[in-house]
Parts: sequence; structure tokens; C-alpha cells
Amino acid sequence: MDDIKRYMETLGRAARAAAQELARTGTAQKNAALDAIAAAILREKAALLAANAEDLAAARASGLEAALLDRLTLSGKGVDDMAAGVRQVAELPDPVGEMTDLRYRPSGIQVGRMRVPLGVIGIIYEARPNVTADAAALCLKSGNAAILRGGSEAIKSNRAIAALIREGLQAANLPSAAVQMVETADRAAVGELITLREFVDVIVPRGGKGLIARLREEARVPMIQHLDGNCHVYLEASADPEKALAIVENAKTQRYGTCNTAESLLIDANAATRLLPPIAAMLEAKGVEIRGCPRTCALIPAARAADEEDYAREYLAPIISVKVVAGLDEAIAHINRYSSRHTDAIVTENHGFAMRFLREVDSSSVMINASTRFADGFEYGLGAEIGISTDKIHARGPVGLEGLTCRKWVVLGSGQVRG
Amino acid sequence: MDDIKRYMETLGRAARAAAQELARTGTAQKNAALDAIAAAILREKAALLAANAEDLAAARASGLEAALLDRLTLSGKGVDDMAAGVRQVAELPDPVGEMTDLRYRPSGIQVGRMRVPLGVIGIIYEARPNVTADAAALCLKSGNAAILRGGSEAIKSNRAIAALIREGLQAANLPSAAVQMVETADRAAVGELITLREFVDVIVPRGGKGLIARLREEARVPMIQHLDGNCHVYLEASADPEKALAIVENAKTQRYGTCNTAESLLIDANAATRLLPPIAAMLEAKGVEIRGCPRTCALIPAARAADEEDYAREYLAPIISVKVVAGLDEAIAHINRYSSRHTDAIVTENHGFAMRFLREVDSSSVMINASTRFADGFEYGLGAEIGISTDKIHARGPVGLEGLTCRKWVVLGSGQVRG
Repeated sequence: MDDIKRYMETLGRAARAAAQELARTGTAQKNAALDAIAAAILREKAALLAANAEDLAAARASGLEAALLDRLTLSGKGVDDMAAGVRQVAELPDPVGEMTDLRYRPSGIQVGRMRVPLGVIGIIYEARPNVTADAAALCLKSGNAAILRGGSEAIKSNRAIAALIREGLQAANLPSAAVQMVETADRAAVGELITLREFVDVIVPRGGKGLIARLREEARVPMIQHLDGNCHVYLEASADPEKALAIVENAKTQRYGTCNTAESLLIDANAATRLLPPIAAMLEAKGVEIRGCPRTCALIPAARAADEEDYAREYLAPIISVKVVAGLDEAIAHINRYSSRHTDAIVTENHGFAMRFLREVDSSSVMINASTRFADGFEYGLGAEIGISTDKIHARGPVGLEGLTCRKWVVLGSGQVRG
Repeated sequence: MDDIKRYMETLGRAARAAAQELARTGTAQKNAALDAIAAAILREKAALLAANAEDLAAARASGLEAALLDRLTLSGKGVDDMAAGVRQVAELPDPVGEMTDLRYRPSGIQVGRMRVPLGVIGIIYEARPNVTADAAALCLKSGNAAILRGGSEAIKSNRAIAALIREGLQAANLPSAAVQMVETADRAAVGELITLREFVDVIVPRGGKGLIARLREEARVPMIQHLDGNCHVYLEASADPEKALAIVENAKTQRYGTCNTAESLLIDANAATRLLPPIAAMLEAKGVEIRGCPRTCALIPAARAADEEDYAREYLAPIISVKVVAGLDEAIAHINRYSSRHTDAIVTENHGFAMRFLREVDSSSVMINASTRFADGFEYGLGAEIGISTDKIHARGPVGLEGLTCRKWVVLGSGQVRG
């Protein structure tokens, strides 16, 4: 235990030193490292696939479930995509150093903000080797040092990727401690990482709800976290039926397992008989189970009764909860009560209702006449995301390079003193 | 203990409901409440002074130390200032609802950000009754509900102020739970408040280092916090001697007890013989003790030797640590090692060095040729501040109305679905 503590402190101290160097590294040098990493990944495709095959064999032998095996698997295309992702991050604008809002004050000083890296970022993730390259690229481009702790099932894949990242860093004359991997499989390392306040500025956990809930209890370092995606679509009485059908279909059925998938459908009582039957028919045709309130069940014979818990659930499955509501007020109140504050959408042709929904729904993304599936860093133009935050502090929603930075104050004077 | 837990949950639940109402309250209504609060404070000046006199008598009887008695004391002018402070907050622009960066994406959706309140803010502070009105005004204007926990020595003063705040809220037809005071002196209430994650979105502690360090260990709610103000002034070799003298004088001697007071002076070795003697003479004339490195002591006979700990200390007293450094690199390294990341300044006529200092010093405020004493919400144009954050997450430096808000994503569509 003491050994793990010392090991993590060693990583932390090296990361802090590297972060100070990265903070003053120019864009060209960071991009050179990213390009070298991408090239090394492509060059060593066969070696990466071999390392991944070893992980997969061990995981199969230990009986890892199919969904986790799927995430652990690197294909040839997966390696190509990983390299392309790193190159894409190189092409994004560098957020570091941007100065804004420089205004003169009556005292004669000029006050503004400068965007700077957070410092050292700890990433804790499950057995998905591609996250190793993604997270490293985003941290590096934003001038942060990274400490990566991936799932132990992916240890050989991750080691192989980490070696190529180090190679790229060295090629660009950057400290290899800019991206470090936690090499021990001991779970105590995670406990140390999330309490290493002296050396770690923020933790980004990427994984299931169980992992994140546990980390949240124990963390002493701030986290950019995402617990749940219980997303709603509300069909207001004036909703266009074609838009409503298309948006519900896309939001619920395009992919069942993503966090921006709709899990709950609210319909205005004045439009339920008009809007609900064709939507229910579409859902039934796609094999989606409907769990509804009594009025829903009266309109849709195939629906089964929803209980209270259904409205709070992230199904991640072909199931949707449906509720008929009296109007906008009840819809907003229901969403603010049950939503996980991820993404919620209204379908309406009424401007006033649209604006009220936009203002009053307290979620990281609020949408008018668009599918919840758009809540995504690429769709929003961030280029890539390190995660989607359902917290309110620091960053909300998709977190890209900007979310890995903060803004300090800069004061330009010419000898001023305070009166 | 269970009673305290239930009591705090009751406050939290009421605050959450009030926050939802405040989030959709318009600027005029919030300003009407602030104006009514300011008017009530002025009208009840005599009653406030009487309540404060009771607190003071009890505090004297219990032997409270002079500095704390001083903070606890409300004068007639103090009451006037409190009302004026509330009126000033009413005059500040409302940050809530601001929409920015609305850009069309290739999919046809328009994506942007909307500034919204954080929700429920817990303020924990020592026995300074004026904070009750200040904090309530800032939370209210930014659309947040507040739960106030002031020092128990100020309980009667705080109750009297809280009653006037409720009166103002009612006059403007806002829920009285928009600003609630923790009425029990039981310290367990603080422990509940900082772990009430379901109902409290952020904690702002205002008080001494001991209080904040303790809260930081136990908090499960994010905090906007400020531990220390160990601020530096670095005189680079090209520094103008008159600017250097004026800035050090102001930064160190204008007030000894404030967090933006300079506690440490760094001087380039190439300029030490030229710059240091007149500055040391000024400091000595003002009764400031100099604790220096060996080269400082060789130049300044009155200086005593500094030890390692001196460079890390926030003296809050007429003492300054002084170190002669080899140049910019050593100055930046020293500051990034010892600074509390509050405010650090360089005095230089060299543009390249100025810009490197600005970029590479990792503090919430970094200044060129200006006194560290400018690090303040009023001086920066925020109008008022709830505190100065030395954290990197969410808000750095002086935190005004903007720091009590966050930005959610808004998506404006016309029926788009994801491809």
C-alpha cells in the first residue's frame, strides 16, 4: 500500500514538472508530437493488434462478458481510426494563450483573461484501448500532462500504445512524463490518484455509472464527470407531427446504448390522440417496448404501465417511458425532477414555449426541434470530446479542449498602484 | 444529529424549489427585491445596531479576541455601506440568459451557449454580518438560491438582516426560501451543508485558512475556495526603479492584512545592487522586517536570514521575504513553487520577459508593472465579489456574478435528426 502511494506520488511529481513545461510549449511542437504519435500508431499496427490479441485471450479465459470483450477489441480499422483521431486533434485550434476581454479600468490598468491549461489531468477509464490515444491527444493539445489509468484487462494494449506516445513525445523533444500510464493493476492506485491533490488538478472518469459513483465518494481532486443520460423528448401541443415522429425515431432508436439516446417521451394532453398513435406504431414496429402512464396505456393498447422508477431510468435498451402531461409547466417540472441533466428536447412550433423550455430546463444541453442524439462533441463542433459533463461546475455537456483549460486574469500596467 | 440532518435537508429542499423559480425570474423582479432589501436595511438601522450590540456584548463576555470583535461590529456607516452594496448589485448587468456563440453546424442545427444560474449556493462564513447581505445580493442577482451559515457570534445580527432580506423578497413576490439562514449554532449543520449533494450545487467558504482547509477535507459538494495569498513581486533586471519602488511600496505596505498584499520580493541578480537598497530603505522606514537570502543580507545590513519556510508564508504582517534570483527562469520557477497561485507581478521594461511571465506564471492573476493590490472584484470591474478563488476549476481569481453561473448548451433546430 505504501509502495503504491509512493509510486503514484512519483508519477504525480513527474507529471507536475512536465505540465510546467507543456504550459509554455508552442502549438507547432505539440502538433509535431501528435503527428509523430499518429505515424507511430500506423507503423506499429501489427504490434498493437498482437498486444490486443494477448489481452483478448486473457480476457476470454477469465470469462469477461461479450459487451466488454467488444470494447476491448482493436481491429485494423480501429487502429487506423485511433491514428486519425490523434491527427484530427492536431488540426484543432490551440486554445492555450488566447487573451480576451482586455479592457482599461479607471485606474489605468488593463484587465483581461488568458486561457491556460489546467495542469495535470488524471483519466480513469475502462478496458477501451482507443481511449488511451484519444485522451492523451486531447490533454497534450490543451497543454496538460496526463496520467492514464485504463482497465486492467487492456494492460498490454495500453502499454503498447503508451510506448508509441512516449516515442512521439521524444521525437518532438517533449518530456515523456507529459503522458504517463499507471503500470500497476492494483486498484489502490485509483484511490491514490483521486486523492493526489498536490499533483493532480482534475480527474476525468470515463466509464459506467458504478465506477463514477464510487469515485465521486472518494475523490478529493475535482472531477469532470457524467453519471447518467436520462434524456427526454417533449412533444408540445403545437408540435409538427412529421418532425415529432422523425425526432422521436432518431432520438430513441438510432442507437440504444448511447448516453444521448432518449429514454422518456412526454406528450401534451391536447395533442396526445393526434401525435402518439403514429409514434407508438413506429416504436412498436422497431421492437421498442412502451411503458406509459394511464392515459398513454388507454391510447396505446400494447403499452404496459410505467411505475415511478421507470421515469428515472436510463434504459440503454429498446424501452421508452411515456407520459401525457397537462402542458409546458408540467413537462418542465417533470424533466427537472427526473432528468439526469444531460440532454432534453422540445418539439414545438410555438416560439414562446420554445424559449421557456430553453431557459427553464436545467440540463447541460437543451434543444428545440432537434434530436437529443446531437449532444456530442463532434456534432457541436468541438472536434473531439474527453467526455460529457452532467455537473454544473466548470464544464457542462460535451467537454473538448476548452473544458481542459481555465482562464486566469492578466493585468497590463505601466507602473500603476492602488489608490 | 438526526434532527440537524433533517433540518438541513428541509432547508435544501426549499432552496432547490426556490432556485427553480429564481432561474426563470426576470431582471426587474430581482432588482425590485434588492432595492426593497436595501431600503429595509436603511429603515431598520437602529434595530440592526441593537441586535449587533447584543452579539457584541455576548462576544465580549465570552472573551472573543479584538480582531474578531472588530469584524463582528456593525457601525451606522457599516449599515449604510451594506445597503449601498445591495443597491450596487442591483445595478450590475444580469448575467442570466445571455446567449453566445450560436453557430450553424453542417447538420443544420444551430449550437450555442446560454448562461444560467448554478442553482443552490451554500455560503459559510465567519462572524461578519455584512457578508450576510453581500452574499445574499450576489446569489439573488445571479438567479441562485442561497443558504447562509454565518459565524455563531453574529447570530442576532444575522437573524435581523435575514428578516429584512425575507421582507424584500416578499415585497418583490419572490419565495422567501430564495435566501435562507441556518438558524442553529450547532456545528454539525456545516458538516451536513457541505455534503448535501442533492440540494446544494456549490459551497463558497469565506474565512480563514483553518476553516477552509477543514471544509475541503469533508466537502462532497464542489467548493469555490481560496486558501492563501502568498503574492510575489519580481523586479526583472530592466525594471524602472521608480515603478519598482512604487509598486513594492503599494503591494506590501498599503494594507498588511489583505490576501492580495505582496509577501515576497524577488530581484534579478543583475539589478539587485541598483534596485534593492532604496526599496529596503523605504520598507525599513515603514517598519517592515526584511527576511532575505544570503545575497540580500549582504546588501541590506538590517535584513535577517530567511529560511525555506519564509518563502512559503503568507505573513499578513509587516514582514517580507526577499530573494535575489539569477533571472526570469529562476523567478518563474520560484513563484510556481512557492506561490499560493493568487496574484504575482513582474516589474520590467522588457516585452519578451513580460509576456513570458504572463504566460508561464500559474496564478489566478498575473500582472505586468502593476501592484498586486489590484487583484479585487471592484478593481477588475466585476462590481462585487463573493470571494477570490485560488482553484483552477470553474472560476479563478475574483469571483463575481459570472462565477455564480455556468453555461449550458442550446441547440436550435427545425426538425433535424442525426445522420
